[in-house]
Amino acid sequence: MESRYLAALSGRNEGAPPLWIMRQAGRYLPEYRELRKKHRFETMMETPELAYQVTKMPLERFDLDAAILFSDILPVCRTVGGKVAFVEGKGPVVDFNFEKFAVECGVESLQFVEKAIRLLKPDLSVPLIGFAGGPFTVASYLIEGGGVGDLKKVKRAIAERREELHRLLSLLTDQTIDYLLMQVEAGVDAIQLFDTWAGMLDPCAFQEFVLPYNQKIFAALSGKVPTIFFGRGLGSHLHLLKEIGATGIGVDQTVDLSYARAFLGNEVVLQGNLDPGFLYGSKDSVVEQVKKVLEKMKGDPAYIFNFGYGILPDVRPEVVEWIVETVKQKVTV
Amino acid sequence: MESRYLAALSGRNEGAPPLWIMRQAGRYLPEYRELRKKHRFETMMETPELAYQVTKMPLERFDLDAAILFSDILPVCRTVGGKVAFVEGKGPVVDFNFEKFAVECGVESLQFVEKAIRLLKPDLSVPLIGFAGGPFTVASYLIEGGGVGDLKKVKRAIAERREELHRLLSLLTDQTIDYLLMQVEAGVDAIQLFDTWAGMLDPCAFQEFVLPYNQKIFAALSGKVPTIFFGRGLGSHLHLLKEIGATGIGVDQTVDLSYARAFLGNEVVLQGNLDPGFLYGSKDSVVEQVKKVLEKMKGDPAYIFNFGYGILPDVRPEVVEWIVETVKQKVTV
Repeated sequence: MESRYLAALSGRNEGAPPLWIMRQAGRYLPEYRELRKKHRFETMMETPELAYQVTKMPLERFDLDAAILFSDILPVCRTVGGKVAFVEGKGPVVDFNFEKFAVECGVESLQFVEKAIRLLKPDLSVPLIGFAGGPFTVASYLIEGGGVGDLKKVKRAIAERREELHRLLSLLTDQTIDYLLMQVEAGVDAIQLFDTWAGMLDPCAFQEFVLPYNQKIFAALSGKVPTIFFGRGLGSHLHLLKEIGATGIGVDQTVDLSYARAFLGNEVVLQGNLDPGFLYGSKDSVVEQVKKVLEKMKGDPAYIFNFGYGILPDVRPEVVEWIVETVKQKVTV
Repeated sequence: MESRYLAALSGRNEGAPPLWIMRQAGRYLPEYRELRKKHRFETMMETPELAYQVTKMPLERFDLDAAILFSDILPVCRTVGGKVAFVEGKGPVVDFNFEKFAVECGVESLQFVEKAIRLLKPDLSVPLIGFAGGPFTVASYLIEGGGVGDLKKVKRAIAERREELHRLLSLLTDQTIDYLLMQVEAGVDAIQLFDTWAGMLDPCAFQEFVLPYNQKIFAALSGKVPTIFFGRGLGSHLHLLKEIGATGIGVDQTVDLSYARAFLGNEVVLQGNLDPGFLYGSKDSVVEQVKKVLEKMKGDPAYIFNFGYGILPDVRPEVVEWIVETVKQKVTV
C-alpha cells in the first residue's frame, strides 16, 4: 500500500490525513531522555547508530506516517566555519566570525547523516524525511551566536553589511543543496526545509534575504523528492510562499489553514498546525483542539497533519497517542 | 491648525503623515536614564509630576505629532489583585492568584494617571494619547507571572480552565473600560489599546478570547475619542480585526501595509510599521528603510507613521531625528 504521507505529498490522499510530529524523536520521550543521560546531544546526532535508534523511537510507540531523521538544523554551519555547541538549558551556542568567513569544508564532513539514513532505510516501514535549516535561519544562528532572540544583529547586518550577508546566504545555500542532495542520494523520501525564523522579517526583507535562496534549493531538488517549506508566523508572507517552489508549505498555528488553502490554491500541499501549547490539558480538551484542525482540512487530498511548531519536552507521551487516535479516526470523545 | 495626527485619525490628512513612536518616552533618551537613576520605574509612573516630565521629554527633542502618556500596560492588574514589580533587566514580575480572584478595587486606585493627564493637557501643543493593555495581554502577564514567553500557562488555561479565563477577561474588560473612560474624562485625545501578544493565538482562539472583549472596549469609547488597536504578528488575523470596532489598526512590520490597506479597506486608519531592528545602521540605511514604509502609504489620508513595536533602549536618539526629518520630507539622502 502506498504511504499516506507520500500520497498527500502528491495531492492524492483519501480518507484520514497522514501525520507526523515536529521533534517527534526528542525530549518528551522517556527512552530518549534515558539515552541522553549517557551521551551528549552532539554525539547522538553524529553517531549513525544512535541517530538510527532515536529516529525509530517514536515509531515504536505511535502509528505515525513518516519518520524524520534525528538531527538538527545547524550541521551545515561547520562548512562555513561555524562551531556549534549545545548547552544544556540554553540551546545552541555558535562561534562564528562574520568579519571573515569562507567555505572551510564540504558536506563530506557531515557524512554521519548519510550513514544514519543508509542504516535506517531498510528498517523503516514509513517514508523517511530528511531536512536542513533554511539559509536565513542558519545564518541567523551564526550571526547572533546562538538563540536568535529578536534578530538584532541580523537586522543590523541587513542595514549595514548587506553584501556580506548575501555572500553568507549564498555560501550556505550551496552547502545546503549539497547536504540535501547527499541525503536524497542516501535514500530519504522527502525533504523539509526549516526556515523557522524567516517570518520575523518584514515581507520586503523576506523577499530579498529568504525567497531567492530557498527558491534555489527547491529548484535543485525538483523532480528528485517532494519538498516542504516550514516557517513560523508567515500569515503576511503567503503571497511570497506562492513563489517558493516547494511541493508543500508547513505553517504554524497563527495561519488559518482554510485561509492558506484558499489563498495558495489547490496545487500546493499544506502541513500543520495544531498549537503545541494546547497539549497540557485533559484528553477531551486535546481531542477537541485536534478536531478543530481536522475539520478545516476535511477531505483535503493534499494535507498532512502536524503541529504548528515542535512538540515541547514536558508533553506527556500519552497525549501523542490521543492525537494519533483522533487523526486516524479511531476515537470519538 | 488641526493636528495632523487627529486629521489622519479622521481620514482627512493631506501631505506628510503624522508620526509618533511607540515608547517614545523611554530608555533610549539620556535624560530619561538620568531621571531613572533617582527613581524606581513605578515611582516615575505613579507620580504625576514625574510622568508629566517624562511624557514631555521626547517632544522637547523631536517634532512629533502626538504625545503618549508615560505609563505602562499593567496598572489595571491591581484592580483584580495582581501585584506588579518591575525588576531591572527582567521586566515585570507579577504576583497573582489565578485560583481565586475578584475585583479588589476600582480604577480610583489609578488616579495618578488621571492627575498626570490633567497636568499635561494645558502644556501640550500636540494631542495626548491615553492607553491600556488589552484584556488578553494583561491576563497573560497575570497568568504567566510576568514575561509571557510562549504563553504556555495561558494556553493551558484555554484548554482546562476556559470559564475562569473568560471570567478574568471579563473583569479586566470592565476595569479597562473604567480606566480608559477616566483617561478620556481627564482629557486624552485618543486611546490606543495594546493587545501586544494576542497574535500568538491561532485565529480561532483569538476570536474567542480576544475579539469580544476588545469589541466591548471599543464600543464603550465609540463617539468619545478615536481609538487604535495594536498587536504584533497579526497577518493571519486581519479578517478578525475588521470587526474589532477601533478607528484604526496598528500593525507590526510582519504585516505589509499595502496589503493591510487592500484587505481592510479605506474606512480604517492604519498605523505602523518600521521594523525598529533597522535603527542601528548609518543614516543612509535608516532613511532608506523609512522611505520604503512611506512609499507604500504615500498620499494615504488615514495613515500614521510609527514603528512595528517599541523603540529599544540602545537606539541612538539622533536616529529618531533622522526619521522625523524623513517623514516630514525635510531630508533627501
